[in-house]
Amino acid sequence: MKATTIHAPFDIRLSDVDAPSILAPSDAIVRITASCICGSDLWPYRGENDITEGARIGHEFVGIVEETGSEVSTVRRGDFVIAPFMFSDNTCPHCRAGIQSACSHGGFWGAQDRDGRPVDGGQGEYARVPLADGTLVAAPEVPDDALVPSLLALSDVMGTGWHAAVAAGVKQGDTVVVVGDGAVGLSGVLAASRMGAGRVVAMSRHASRQKIAQEFGATDIVAERGEEGEAAIRELTGGVGADAVLECVGTGQSMNTAIAIARPGATVGYVGVPHGVELPVRSMFSRNVGVAGGIAPVREYLPHLRDEVLSGAINPGLVFDLELPLSEVAEGYAAMHERRAVKTLLRP
Amino acid sequence: MKATTIHAPFDIRLSDVDAPSILAPSDAIVRITASCICGSDLWPYRGENDITEGARIGHEFVGIVEETGSEVSTVRRGDFVIAPFMFSDNTCPHCRAGIQSACSHGGFWGAQDRDGRPVDGGQGEYARVPLADGTLVAAPEVPDDALVPSLLALSDVMGTGWHAAVAAGVKQGDTVVVVGDGAVGLSGVLAASRMGAGRVVAMSRHASRQKIAQEFGATDIVAERGEEGEAAIRELTGGVGADAVLECVGTGQSMNTAIAIARPGATVGYVGVPHGVELPVRSMFSRNVGVAGGIAPVREYLPHLRDEVLSGAINPGLVFDLELPLSEVAEGYAAMHERRAVKTLLRP
Repeated sequence: MKATTIHAPFDIRLSDVDAPSILAPSDAIVRITASCICGSDLWPYRGENDITEGARIGHEFVGIVEETGSEVSTVRRGDFVIAPFMFSDNTCPHCRAGIQSACSHGGFWGAQDRDGRPVDGGQGEYARVPLADGTLVAAPEVPDDALVPSLLALSDVMGTGWHAAVAAGVKQGDTVVVVGDGAVGLSGVLAASRMGAGRVVAMSRHASRQKIAQEFGATDIVAERGEEGEAAIRELTGGVGADAVLECVGTGQSMNTAIAIARPGATVGYVGVPHGVELPVRSMFSRNVGVAGGIAPVREYLPHLRDEVLSGAINPGLVFDLELPLSEVAEGYAAMHERRAVKTLLRP
Repeated sequence: MKATTIHAPFDIRLSDVDAPSILAPSDAIVRITASCICGSDLWPYRGENDITEGARIGHEFVGIVEETGSEVSTVRRGDFVIAPFMFSDNTCPHCRAGIQSACSHGGFWGAQDRDGRPVDGGQGEYARVPLADGTLVAAPEVPDDALVPSLLALSDVMGTGWHAAVAAGVKQGDTVVVVGDGAVGLSGVLAASRMGAGRVVAMSRHASRQKIAQEFGATDIVAERGEEGEAAIRELTGGVGADAVLECVGTGQSMNTAIAIARPGATVGYVGVPHGVELPVRSMFSRNVGVAGGIAPVREYLPHLRDEVLSGAINPGLVFDLELPLSEVAEGYAAMHERRAVKTLLRP
C-alpha cells in the first residue's frame, strides 16, 4: 500500500510499504478515507525534532473498518470510524479518569505498540489500529461526504481545542481569550463559544483566520501581540483580565501573554506543545493564575463531539482550507509550512 | 502601645509605638486579644527577605472592635472579629470573584494602605484596620476562650490550607497527598478531610506533626522525601498517583515531588510561597498535571470556616503548640525557627 514517510527535513514522500494485517486479537484494520496534516507534523518536517529516515508519519484519520480481531466488539467491518491521535485501551485507570492520552497501554501512530509491534502512521491507505475497542469511535452510519472534514477534525484539533477550554474551566458567560490562530486555536474558539462563553476574543493577525474565528463564534479580534496585545485585552476587560485563557501555540511568548492576561483566579488551559516555555511561577502565585492542560485526551471527547458534528451544532471542518490527493502529500506539508494553508486534508 | 518590630536578622523586639487612630471613615480600631507568628515571618527573621529596620511585623490576629469610622456598617464596637492576613474591600471585581488577595484596594499588614497611610502589624496591642467592612469577619458573639486558637488559625493557616484544597479540586472520595507538615500543611490535611477525601496522606517526618495530622484526619503518613517519598506514594496508590496534591512548602524539591506524585489529569494546589521553584512544564504537559493556587484569599473562606469552628466541626487551633505572652514574642520566633514549636500563639 501507499503511506507517507519522512526521510529528512523537507523530504516527505508517498512510499510503498507493507499493508497491515491483524497482529493481535484487539486490532482492527481501517481503510483510511480521509487524513490530514498536523501542525505538530511540521516539527520534524522542519528538522526541529529528530527524524528516523523513512519513518511513517501522520496521526489523524477517519475511515472504514475492513477487518477486526477476535476480541473486538464495539466496531465491525463496514463501520465509519474516527481515530484519535493516540491509541488507548479506554479501560485503565488513566483512561477511566478521562486522560486517555496517558493510557497505560496506549501510544502514538507511526511508532510501536507496547508489545513492540509496528504501528502505522495516519497518512496512508490503511492502518492497523491497536486496542480498537478503546481507540476507535464509530458513527451510527457512514456519513455524508460533506461531514467528513468535520469528523476528521475531531481526531485531533477540535478535541485539542476542546481540551484547552475544559482545562481552562470555561463557564457560561465567561470572557475567554484564545492565544493562537492555528487550527487548534480556531477550534478553541469554537469550543469556548459552544460552551457558552459570553465573549470570545481571538488573538489573530491573519485575515483568513480571523474570518474562520468569527464563523466559530469569536466576538472580538485582537491583532496585536506581546505587550500591545496584553494592553488590548486589559482594555477589553475593563482592566480585570480574562476569565479563562486558551493557550494554543506553545512558545514562551504565547504562554507569557496567556498568563499575563488571565484575571486573578483564572486558569490558562494550554495545549500547545511547550517549546522554550518557562512558567513565571512568582507571577502566577501572586495573582492566583493556574495552568492546566497537556496532551489532549481526544478520545474522551470524541463521542460527544461526534454527536455535535452529526447534529450540525458544530462544523470544525472549516479549519481545512486545502484538500489534496494523498499522492500530493508533500505539497500539503509545503503549503502549511509556508503558511499558504491553515490545515491540509488528504483523500486517497 | 506595644507592638512587635524587626530590626535585623534574629532581632525581634516588643517596642513602644504610637497607638493607632481612625484615619479614614472605612477604618476600624481593633484591640488584639490573640495573634500569632507565621512561617512566612521567619523569612525576614532569618534574613532571607529584606528587612527595614524597626518595621512592624505580624499579620494574623483576632480581637475586639474598639472604634469604627463613620462608613463602617458590618462590625461595631465590642464585636469579636477575625482579620485575614491581608485587608481588602470585598467589593472590587477580584474580591467578587473570590480572590480577595488580589483586591484592587487591598494590602498587607505592617505596610501601607493605598493612600500611603501606615498600617499596623498584627503582633501588637491594637491595629487600625483599613476597609473594615471588607476585611473583618465578626463572630455572632464573643466566643469562649477555648475557641480563640481555632478562630485565630482562620486568619491565615487554615484558610491557606483550605485554599490549597480548593485549588487542587479535592472531591469526595479522592486520594489526597499533602506535601509539607507545617501549620499550613496540617491545615491542608484538615481541609481535605473535611471536604470528604477518602484518603489523606500526610508527608511528614516529625512525630509531633504526624500526630496532629492524624487528629486532622490523615489516614496515611509517608515519612520519606524525594524519590523515596514518590515511590511510597506510587505504591500507596497502586501506581496511579494522587487524585489531588496540596503543596504547602514552596521549595523546588517539594514542588517537584508534588508534581511527580499527581496522577495524570490531577491538579497540584500550591500555597507555599515559591522559593527556587522551576515548574517542569514538559512533564506537566505530557501528564496533564496542572498547578493552581497562590496567595490565599482567606477572606473568601472566613465566614464558612468561622461557622465550622463555632459548630465544632473543625478545630484548626491544634496547630498551636506554644503559647506565650506578647512580651516574649522574640522567644516565640526563636522557638519556631529552631523547630521547637510548629506555631506560636501570643496573648497580650
